[in-house]
Amino acid sequence: GTGADNDLYINQAIVFIEDAIQYRSINHRVDSKSLGLYRWYYSRTCQWILGLTITVILALAFIEKPSSLTITSDVRYRLPAWNPPCGLTESIELLCFLVFAIDVSVKSYLIGWEEFWKNKWLMAYILTLIVSLTDWIVSLSFFCAEDLRIRRILRPFFLLQNSSMMKKTLKSINSTLPEMASVVLLLAVHLSLFTMFAMLLFARTKDGQQDKEWVAYFRNLPDALTSLLVLLTTANNPDVMIPAYSKNRAYSIFFILFTVLGNLFLMHLLTAIIYNQFRGYLLKSVQSSLFRRRLGIRAAFEVLSSLKETPANSQQSYVSAGALLQVLQKAEMDSRCRQAIIRSLKICSCDQLSAAQFQKLFEELDKDAIKQHPPTPEYQSHFMQKMQFVFGHPYFGYLGNVVALANIVSICVVLVMDADKQPSERDDFFLGAINCFFILYYVLEMLLKIIAMGLKRYLSYPSNRFDGLLTVILLVLEIATFAVYGFPHPGWRPEFMGLLSLWDMVRLVNMFIVFRFLRIIPNMKFMALVVTTLLDLVKNLRAFAGILVVVFYAFAITGIMLFKGAVVPVGNTRLNFFLIIFLSQTSFYIKKEIVLYFKEKCDFMALFGHFQAEIIYCLLYLLSVNLICRWAKIYFVAWWLISSVIWVNLFIALLLENFIHKWDRRCHREPVSDIEYQRTVELMFRDVLEEPTEEELMEKLHQHPHLQLCR
Amino acid sequence: GTGADNDLYINQAIVFIEDAIQYRSINHRVDSKSLGLYRWYYSRTCQWILGLTITVILALAFIEKPSSLTITSDVRYRLPAWNPPCGLTESIELLCFLVFAIDVSVKSYLIGWEEFWKNKWLMAYILTLIVSLTDWIVSLSFFCAEDLRIRRILRPFFLLQNSSMMKKTLKSINSTLPEMASVVLLLAVHLSLFTMFAMLLFARTKDGQQDKEWVAYFRNLPDALTSLLVLLTTANNPDVMIPAYSKNRAYSIFFILFTVLGNLFLMHLLTAIIYNQFRGYLLKSVQSSLFRRRLGIRAAFEVLSSLKETPANSQQSYVSAGALLQVLQKAEMDSRCRQAIIRSLKICSCDQLSAAQFQKLFEELDKDAIKQHPPTPEYQSHFMQKMQFVFGHPYFGYLGNVVALANIVSICVVLVMDADKQPSERDDFFLGAINCFFILYYVLEMLLKIIAMGLKRYLSYPSNRFDGLLTVILLVLEIATFAVYGFPHPGWRPEFMGLLSLWDMVRLVNMFIVFRFLRIIPNMKFMALVVTTLLDLVKNLRAFAGILVVVFYAFAITGIMLFKGAVVPVGNTRLNFFLIIFLSQTSFYIKKEIVLYFKEKCDFMALFGHFQAEIIYCLLYLLSVNLICRWAKIYFVAWWLISSVIWVNLFIALLLENFIHKWDRRCHREPVSDIEYQRTVELMFRDVLEEPTEEELMEKLHQHPHLQLCR
Repeated sequence: GTGADNDLYINQAIVFIEDAIQYRSINHRVDSKSLGLYRWYYSRTCQWILGLTITVILALAFIEKPSSLTITSDVRYRLPAWNPPCGLTESIELLCFLVFAIDVSVKSYLIGWEEFWKNKWLMAYILTLIVSLTDWIVSLSFFCAEDLRIRRILRPFFLLQNSSMMKKTLKSINSTLPEMASVVLLLAVHLSLFTMFAMLLFARTKDGQQDKEWVAYFRNLPDALTSLLVLLTTANNPDVMIPAYSKNRAYSIFFILFTVLGNLFLMHLLTAIIYNQFRGYLLKSVQSSLFRRRLGIRAAFEVLSSLKETPANSQQSYVSAGALLQVLQKAEMDSRCRQAIIRSLKICSCDQLSAAQFQKLFEELDKDAIKQHPPTPEYQSHFMQKMQFVFGHPYFGYLGNVVALANIVSICVVLVMDADKQPSERDDFFLGAINCFFILYYVLEMLLKIIAMGLKRYLSYPSNRFDGLLTVILLVLEIATFAVYGFPHPGWRPEFMGLLSLWDMVRLVNMFIVFRFLRIIPNMKFMALVVTTLLDLVKNLRAFAGILVVVFYAFAITGIMLFKGAVVPVGNTRLNFFLIIFLSQTSFYIKKEIVLYFKEKCDFMALFGHFQAEIIYCLLYLLSVNLICRWAKIYFVAWWLISSVIWVNLFIALLLENFIHKWDRRCHREPVSDIEYQRTVELMFRDVLEEPTEEELMEKLHQHPHLQLCR
Repeated sequence: GTGADNDLYINQAIVFIEDAIQYRSINHRVDSKSLGLYRWYYSRTCQWILGLTITVILALAFIEKPSSLTITSDVRYRLPAWNPPCGLTESIELLCFLVFAIDVSVKSYLIGWEEFWKNKWLMAYILTLIVSLTDWIVSLSFFCAEDLRIRRILRPFFLLQNSSMMKKTLKSINSTLPEMASVVLLLAVHLSLFTMFAMLLFARTKDGQQDKEWVAYFRNLPDALTSLLVLLTTANNPDVMIPAYSKNRAYSIFFILFTVLGNLFLMHLLTAIIYNQFRGYLLKSVQSSLFRRRLGIRAAFEVLSSLKETPANSQQSYVSAGALLQVLQKAEMDSRCRQAIIRSLKICSCDQLSAAQFQKLFEELDKDAIKQHPPTPEYQSHFMQKMQFVFGHPYFGYLGNVVALANIVSICVVLVMDADKQPSERDDFFLGAINCFFILYYVLEMLLKIIAMGLKRYLSYPSNRFDGLLTVILLVLEIATFAVYGFPHPGWRPEFMGLLSLWDMVRLVNMFIVFRFLRIIPNMKFMALVVTTLLDLVKNLRAFAGILVVVFYAFAITGIMLFKGAVVPVGNTRLNFFLIIFLSQTSFYIKKEIVLYFKEKCDFMALFGHFQAEIIYCLLYLLSVNLICRWAKIYFVAWWLISSVIWVNLFIALLLENFIHKWDRRCHREPVSDIEYQRTVELMFRDVLEEPTEEELMEKLHQHPHLQLCR
């Protein structure tokens, strides 16, 4: 019937609007039942459950069998980590797989079978699930005793496929790969030519005294290649040339040439290439997001214009304002946006909306919320008004900053004075007294500001919230200290009481004071710019960070599996692998000492003298196991290339992009009084984005696999 | 008289045109005598003498008293370096000062006294000369025994003031300083806040076993600051956190936070800022060069238009073609440019040139020479024509590349096979035989190519020149080998004869073969692009490299003076300081082992076991001298900031700038058959540069301090 049809159209419009808001594709089934399923699937609860499942399955690695969830990393002191019984983590895994199975089947159903065969991500999803389940069955049939668990390496895929941003970023990175591969090839050519040169230059001589360089670094092809590859990371920079340099100073020319060409030119060329390639792709991805939004809105317009109530005689299609209102009420969206749209709809006061008007109404979605701070309270009394003026003035804030600085300086002075004192000689009175005074001032400042500005206005500023929260924490800590240890007096050195010693309490208070000092940031222009750039970056970096987590995870699990035999005698080191991989980020792993001790397999314990943390220990161990060493090399070189070279360069590219856009805008626009918070990539590229044309939109709409438009 | 006036005008025009060609300022005296002096001063001989003088005074450092011009750097084997007698280097210095004095007085006279007082560079020049001379007199009166020689630190100034490119670059860097200072300030705030946090976190505890972190890295404020500063260079990355991490894994959060914020964000922000700031300045400096060129040409036009022979009645001023021809004949310029200008003058066939026409004629100066290869010889015989077709074909070149690759691979295989053999077991027959074969092929290839292309055309390609030169060298080496050691046969292992052993000869040949393999570069598109970018960069980088040399030199001399007492017992180490400073480029000097041994002052000799080259030795020594250690810290941190942080970032900025321009051009233009060689900054920015307007030029001309224009 017409009523049912109309209901379907309204429902379709609602879903399309929601798609537009979330930048989702509109290529899904549009019949009544599917729409219900679709809205249920994208409801907050469902998505939250999916997110939780992904978190749980990733977090499983921390408690699974070779677990190292202990406080200390020192093998001597730490208790054996708790190993879950066989079947516990496996049953949690099965639950997760179930959720994923539901997820993939709903997704596949919603996009329709035709689309399904074109969607490689969904196919890979199903394949991953099948492989994981098979592996799970094998694992259970061996009573969790089998070595190879492929499903662990596959886990990060679940994170990857769930985020459209990450998929998009991966696509961008993928398009940069050919160029990157060229430079990496160039690096390889550079490396191999220099290796041959080095092997000819530092050949074995008849005089055993003269070929130290050959013995230490260029004994054979793999050794020579490793030496020069490590030199490319600058880790063994002076050492590798010392024997040759000590023979003849001129040998240094070879190393200098290699370093300048490889390290200075080729490595930075990689930065330039990645930046150059990546510039366009970020913009492109934002452009496609915009297209999705416009397309969703247009689709909503088209279905609404098919409603029976509109006059069909006119050439152009129109949408009645009533239908739109109905859709707006039911669609899930930010209430501020909804109100703004309804308001403009009322202002325009047109009964029939054309496509352009319809699009224009929804431009509100692209705008950022303009924060309006609540007004200050209006006091009657003259005294209160004066107080309000004084304590609401920016200078009062500056005074607060000066006091905070004075506090920092005083803490610093005490730290320097107490640096070499024995803990028993230390007098906590001075620090206790000054902190007491300063915290009193902070509380007073907060109260006065609240009086001057009113609580609501006070809390509407993020800097005030930060300030207030820390002040309250400091006050609580100080009161707790006095409650347990009494008021400070000269020679105030009480014994340990309660949860923390007085010294620990004072340290904690001091740390919070140091932390509170960050409130000066918004007052310094350049710092504010830098901090907002960094915040922007963090927001834009989420997709990158996600991909990094995926790579981290896969590498960590692969590493654990590869080096299982080597690591076992030292201790179970799961968390460590994450840490090692973080450290390698800053080019640690092929650092000199590793290579050095790698050579002197046996006596590294003697060299270290006393016990070193297992982190170096285990790495040394696994590097010293000859069998594994070549695998380890390939593994670490791959990791170095991905994390230290490619990821860092991508990061630089993103930072350059963000910063230069921000900077240009700062220079072009008039100075705005408040700091702007424009954190989304979309807003950053606003001025450069192109609006999709009517034809493009309609062409795309007509290609929709499930929606049959009347015309 | 009129004739003398006319001569003066012609001379002025000649000098102005020469100024335009060399991008020189035209603000100098323009009377007859001064013009003669000016042309003499800027003649090739004079400038060559000046350049030589600068080289000599800079090179003096290598043979001056604490000289280390020895082959080996090993103190045990090396002979005491030759120390010149007192008065030798000093008299060379005096000669140099004399040349500089003449230089500065000519320069000052030429720009005139009024301009002189505005020119800070000239003032500084005179001041430097006076200080140097005073220091020289003091030095001689002490019979070269005094410690402090300020004039040595001042020497690089002579290099700096002589290059207008370097002065311009320095100005650019100078304008970037405020922004850089902001980030460095931010880094300092980051560092100091984290230092305070660390000192509170890793405080001394009553239990001696628990405060390893405090003992090792955070004992007092300077120690803590150093630890974290070194962490910022990632040199002590895992070690600094090991004791705390071994106590509680959670402590790693502090270090990770510090590294991510400082190393990943702030350091790369510096890159972004420098790139962003620097982008404009390079363009600006090129723009001002263009302005100088246009101004010089316009000034020539103006003086030529005042010649008496031109009709004075017309509103616009004109220049007769005859006068211009006269000027062109006498002005010193590239003969290709001169001919091109004369040719266009004849084509235009106008007797009177307007200002616009005049400027247009000289646009030839901005164009790059288009290289035309000589034609191939035309053979009569059918056989020769066929040969010409076959061996002139690109595929023959590709075949040559394949053969070169095969040669490389064969050398590689022999190297791998011989890697662990004793020198006495080695059989040189195989390598000798294959090299003989390959070199024969190379010679044949060269000869065939010469026949096919003709000698002139063959030599006109740089790749052929490279190829041919190496082939000839290889042939000579091979013939020499056969002459001394006879032809290769199995078991060919002759004793040492002549200058080099057979093994050394073979190695040398192999090295040249490896080097010759670089001929493949122009055949690979991406490689060719990268290599031309690098060549561009090297050209544009000269000014940067000059400034780096200035800073290197000043730092090296300062270091020698600062650490004189500390270094003396180890040995004289002048050249070493240059090397140390180069190594520090790749963040060597605050590397871990230094810091480590810096802590364990005494037993580093025992640790090293056997003798290490003095380079580490002397650094350790001077770091281990407690008195000097704080100075050394400041010195090295300053050096790290300048060379490793600022210079490397400037380099990245320049590389990005070059590469992105190049890349954009490659994408926009149609593909050109030959590789273009556009190496000057001017040409790179061609499309973006703005031509100065007529008004700007005339205004500038009227401000000329010595030239009185008629109107």
